Amino acid sequence: MYPDTIDGALSMPPLTKARIISKLHQHEQALRDQKRSRRGKMEWAPLPQSAHAANTVNPIRKIADAVAVEPNPDKTPIKMHLGDPSLTGRLPPSPIAVQALEEAVRSHKHDGYGPAVGEQAAREAVAQRYSHPAAPITANDVILASGCSHALQIAIEGIANPGDNILIPHPGFPLYSTLSKPHGIEDRAYKLDMKNGGLIDLEYMESLIDERTRAVIINNPGNPTGIVFPKEHLEDILKLASRYQLVIIADEIYGDLTYDGAVFHPLATLSPKVPIITCDGIAKRWMVPGWRLGWLIVHDRFRVLSEVRKGLVALSQKIVGPCALVQGALPKILLETPEEYFEYNRQVISKNANAVCRVLKGVKGVHCLKPHGAMYMMISIDKTIYGDDVQFASSLIQEESVYCLPGAAFSSPGWIRLVITHGEEMTEEAAMRIREFCERRRTEPVVELVESSDEGCDISNSESD
Amino acid sequence: MYPDTIDGALSMPPLTKARIISKLHQHEQALRDQKRSRRGKMEWAPLPQSAHAANTVNPIRKIADAVAVEPNPDKTPIKMHLGDPSLTGRLPPSPIAVQALEEAVRSHKHDGYGPAVGEQAAREAVAQRYSHPAAPITANDVILASGCSHALQIAIEGIANPGDNILIPHPGFPLYSTLSKPHGIEDRAYKLDMKNGGLIDLEYMESLIDERTRAVIINNPGNPTGIVFPKEHLEDILKLASRYQLVIIADEIYGDLTYDGAVFHPLATLSPKVPIITCDGIAKRWMVPGWRLGWLIVHDRFRVLSEVRKGLVALSQKIVGPCALVQGALPKILLETPEEYFEYNRQVISKNANAVCRVLKGVKGVHCLKPHGAMYMMISIDKTIYGDDVQFASSLIQEESVYCLPGAAFSSPGWIRLVITHGEEMTEEAAMRIREFCERRRTEPVVELVESSDEGCDISNSESD
Repeated sequence: MYPDTIDGALSMPPLTKARIISKLHQHEQALRDQKRSRRGKMEWAPLPQSAHAANTVNPIRKIADAVAVEPNPDKTPIKMHLGDPSLTGRLPPSPIAVQALEEAVRSHKHDGYGPAVGEQAAREAVAQRYSHPAAPITANDVILASGCSHALQIAIEGIANPGDNILIPHPGFPLYSTLSKPHGIEDRAYKLDMKNGGLIDLEYMESLIDERTRAVIINNPGNPTGIVFPKEHLEDILKLASRYQLVIIADEIYGDLTYDGAVFHPLATLSPKVPIITCDGIAKRWMVPGWRLGWLIVHDRFRVLSEVRKGLVALSQKIVGPCALVQGALPKILLETPEEYFEYNRQVISKNANAVCRVLKGVKGVHCLKPHGAMYMMISIDKTIYGDDVQFASSLIQEESVYCLPGAAFSSPGWIRLVITHGEEMTEEAAMRIREFCERRRTEPVVELVESSDEGCDISNSESD
Repeated sequence: MYPDTIDGALSMPPLTKARIISKLHQHEQALRDQKRSRRGKMEWAPLPQSAHAANTVNPIRKIADAVAVEPNPDKTPIKMHLGDPSLTGRLPPSPIAVQALEEAVRSHKHDGYGPAVGEQAAREAVAQRYSHPAAPITANDVILASGCSHALQIAIEGIANPGDNILIPHPGFPLYSTLSKPHGIEDRAYKLDMKNGGLIDLEYMESLIDERTRAVIINNPGNPTGIVFPKEHLEDILKLASRYQLVIIADEIYGDLTYDGAVFHPLATLSPKVPIITCDGIAKRWMVPGWRLGWLIVHDRFRVLSEVRKGLVALSQKIVGPCALVQGALPKILLETPEEYFEYNRQVISKNANAVCRVLKGVKGVHCLKPHGAMYMMISIDKTIYGDDVQFASSLIQEESVYCLPGAAFSSPGWIRLVITHGEEMTEEAAMRIREFCERRRTEPVVELVESSDEGCDISNSESD
């Protein structure tokens, strides 16, 4: 029941109610077949999985399989494909966070169940850190979850029904689809205008809204783009959501992990006329995605989310909260990590982004969309010279031992995504290899390089430039 | 959209497909109303929660609220209502487990994402500990989850569709319903015969099976009963499941936490002719429910679960595995905890069970169903003398400061559940207070006590007797 190819995974039509019912009919037929076989020779027939499970598809993992080729044995592998900042060793967790966790373990106060919505002290710490005069919150507005993925799951499941639709970004994090489709919630994709700095094409987004649109997911700073939306753009998004009275699910997991002058504005602090459910966690700024602690913050300034909030609380009861030890450590993690820790992380990523842009500047048919946040960057690849992005990523491993993910994994064919969490030297080495790889691929003389365009490196999207 | 009363929560009809569609229609109407209000004065109308969230109900929490009364200020509270072994301090985690976790934190090998199904070493440790000559497994048969609750969620969601039914025990852990209902999976209840040792009424169970029955959940040792099913009873269950070709979801979270001679038989080791998905975790034998680590083991000896297994793997990708630190500690926890640790825990609980039975022996209209496993015991309460179980539990708090849960929380009215994880002295004190409470309630002279029956304490269910 799985799509067998990458294209299959990516081109799956949205799950309409009709399609779900059709899936159910198929399933019922399979069961009838099985019953017949039962009555016959009493042998077990293979059992079908549920439609819900069959519709739970994560294209990143499938594409990761597609590029599972052997690297060049003569070159040290440089892995820039997985969005896990803990892998390179350059962005370790803060000693404060480690100490906080050790204290939580030794205290024996966090061996048992906490409340399903999370321990009070942990929720208070979230409220203390993220309350803002323009968007005040208390612990009662916070629900803890097993990572930001789980927070997104609770938000999506709590707000939409089969046949409803949620607007999601393309390019974008494929988990939004993974979480929506099994419930028959249509993942209706709006576009980031990758030729113009990666901002949302708001006119197109507006054309997608209909009576069944339940929410818009805004991911800022963005994965896979590394783009940080300027304040004016966020205000335009809010105006649109207000006009259509759409709830916003704000995926702000990368938060103020911004650099080169870009400023992160939490959506809820811009005095929005819309309710906002912010999803966040410690994975990507405290660099511990494996600790699996995230949260939802319900910003309900118009008091229209009372029922939804009840639903979110009920959904949190299914698996009774995230690891209590990490909950116990959370106050210290959130409130005592020194600012230098974050500043160091920003500098590492900034240097990497600039190194890649510098090295690839001028390579024909290759353009970097200069990032200003998160830990990713997107590079466009001219298909007529280099083939498609999946082929490019696969050959890059085989020839240069440099790992990246093709844009297809993020519904962005024609691009590749680099994770820029190594040291500057290794990142530069990777960029050099990409450059050499491209030069080998081209038939044109090398002299053309200096003449080719580098407009892709233009910083047109950030208010800092 | 929540039932407002305990009875409401417990008597909710099973969610048939028709009921789901009706819910959806209600939801669509609410949305249309909202749209109308939008077009009118552009004020936000309250937003509905999803039908999925509205159907996610956990009666234990609601009943816990119902008995949230003030204790007697003159008596020290004794809390025997929450199934969390970490609360009393008498059953601390093993030093090995604490050490293993500290090592995992310091190693910095578990700060990042593991595979969604869990780290290889952790899954191998589960396979090593639970493989059995009669039911051999490898790491490939193991999927880690955020606690046994999450394992159960994955199992139920992976195997059943809206309109299907799953057989669940009454009395039983209400989470099975909490996880089934929002998907429109009917939670069809079979009966434990509480007058005859708490075994399953198999004839009645058979009468419940129809073409849409997808699985049977067998919880052994049982919550809330503390009953350990004898081998012959388990074999009878397996025969029934085999005859109807039903998958068994075996909730074995209490495993070999048995005492007074009772022996735990993992269902999969009894050479069953049925596929079994075992759900388990470290919560209740290693006494760390807050650490949130559980697992599923797919026992597929007839190779009929290949599709289901794919579905379980896909579902595990939604929230990307449990806390990696605990995964890192798991091999040491599972393979190096000394047997004395478990033996101590068994003795604590055994002494408590026997103390309660001893003290309550002879109290009129009060009968203990003697447990042999898990950390609970059930006591039947004669309604004509003491009122219903919710009233009994509530008054017991107010007068004696002894906390228990009414059987209504487990679909077992007329009973109360005690969690027996305190020290023997405090447990005896609690039983004495219950006895005094009952004696005050009765009009009969005290002399009748010695004549009253104690048949409820008979050990009729365990092969050890």
